[in-house]
Amino acid sequence: MAQLLRVQNFNVSSDGVAAGEDQTFERPFGHVDPERLFSWAGATASWPRRTEPGGSRGLDDYMTRDFGNNIGAEIMGRNKFGPQRGPWQDHEWQGWWGDEPPFHTPVFVLTHHERPPITLSDTTFHFVGGEPASVLERAREAARGKDVRLGGGVTTVREFLDAGLVDTLHVAVSPVKLGSGLRLWDSPDDLLDRFHLDVVPSPSGVTHHLFWRR
Amino acid sequence: MAQLLRVQNFNVSSDGVAAGEDQTFERPFGHVDPERLFSWAGATASWPRRTEPGGSRGLDDYMTRDFGNNIGAEIMGRNKFGPQRGPWQDHEWQGWWGDEPPFHTPVFVLTHHERPPITLSDTTFHFVGGEPASVLERAREAARGKDVRLGGGVTTVREFLDAGLVDTLHVAVSPVKLGSGLRLWDSPDDLLDRFHLDVVPSPSGVTHHLFWRR
Repeated sequence: MAQLLRVQNFNVSSDGVAAGEDQTFERPFGHVDPERLFSWAGATASWPRRTEPGGSRGLDDYMTRDFGNNIGAEIMGRNKFGPQRGPWQDHEWQGWWGDEPPFHTPVFVLTHHERPPITLSDTTFHFVGGEPASVLERAREAARGKDVRLGGGVTTVREFLDAGLVDTLHVAVSPVKLGSGLRLWDSPDDLLDRFHLDVVPSPSGVTHHLFWRR
Repeated sequence: MAQLLRVQNFNVSSDGVAAGEDQTFERPFGHVDPERLFSWAGATASWPRRTEPGGSRGLDDYMTRDFGNNIGAEIMGRNKFGPQRGPWQDHEWQGWWGDEPPFHTPVFVLTHHERPPITLSDTTFHFVGGEPASVLERAREAARGKDVRLGGGVTTVREFLDAGLVDTLHVAVSPVKLGSGLRLWDSPDDLLDRFHLDVVPSPSGVTHHLFWRR
């Protein structure tokens, strides 16, 4: 079985914005209120961060339930891991997720600045440099036959798309216009030269875009 | 976590027919050509019976990929296991699936007639009598914390629905009218007193109906 590189539950506005440009500790998504893009996922029963019982089990739940299905490793950009830039000043920083990160696999954090790995519960963060293709090779090895999730942020997703490394891509487009910020695309049609696309409107109001490599 | 009882990838015609009434060895679905109801699933990359590479990875693939996701046991009716009726005449019969059944878990086959278990690869078939609730209890125990799949056929699904035991139900409605046969429902609305429903049209032509308990 091929080991896919999969983007899962990636959220953008109707005009393609995934995050603000002004990330801080207080505002991981900059000026963009993530609730406006993520609320469909938080309403589902299988949302990894859910702490209370209940939640919907319709279409959106298939999307959140698939988050960890056959995933053996994640690759994420440094800006998903934290708001720091440049050399690490603060080795105390262990990501946004507390003692129980929702990944449960090795995670490869892209950075030009070395740092020892961190293990929190069943997630280990490795800090790695190099080209996307070589990072993917390391992640595939760590995934032991399972797929690799490309976790974002938007700059990282675009980098791996540009390198032709992404096999499947799930993007949830919310019915909210943001105007400015970091964009995944001008239009979903930008990817149609390389991907098939199913466009699936959900009763929740988001439109799931499911791409797979031609 | 609750252990759900889930119906996955259950196929019916636009008029609610899931199988013919005249099952034989040659025709497991009686007069109904199963290809007319199942072809959407066979086109996906994750279809458990797929032997060749390729296949779609859009919406329909989320449905087939979820088939075994967090499933620890299956319950099926005797008519899904084979065409025999009454006391077992032929202990050689080991189901329709050959040496590598696509279940990979314990399977509980409902029957009034005892028979020793059969193990084929990583699937073990147990032959059990009793009320739906007691069979479900045995299957939950065997599933070791995971969910239980209710595999059909249609008579078995209706029996567990009538007993109020089903938590989620995925029914793929194909755009084909069959007229006669064993029916799951007169209309999907029949279940709305007990279930929420997302109706999701797929680009393939089937309409996925996703029910979850109120």
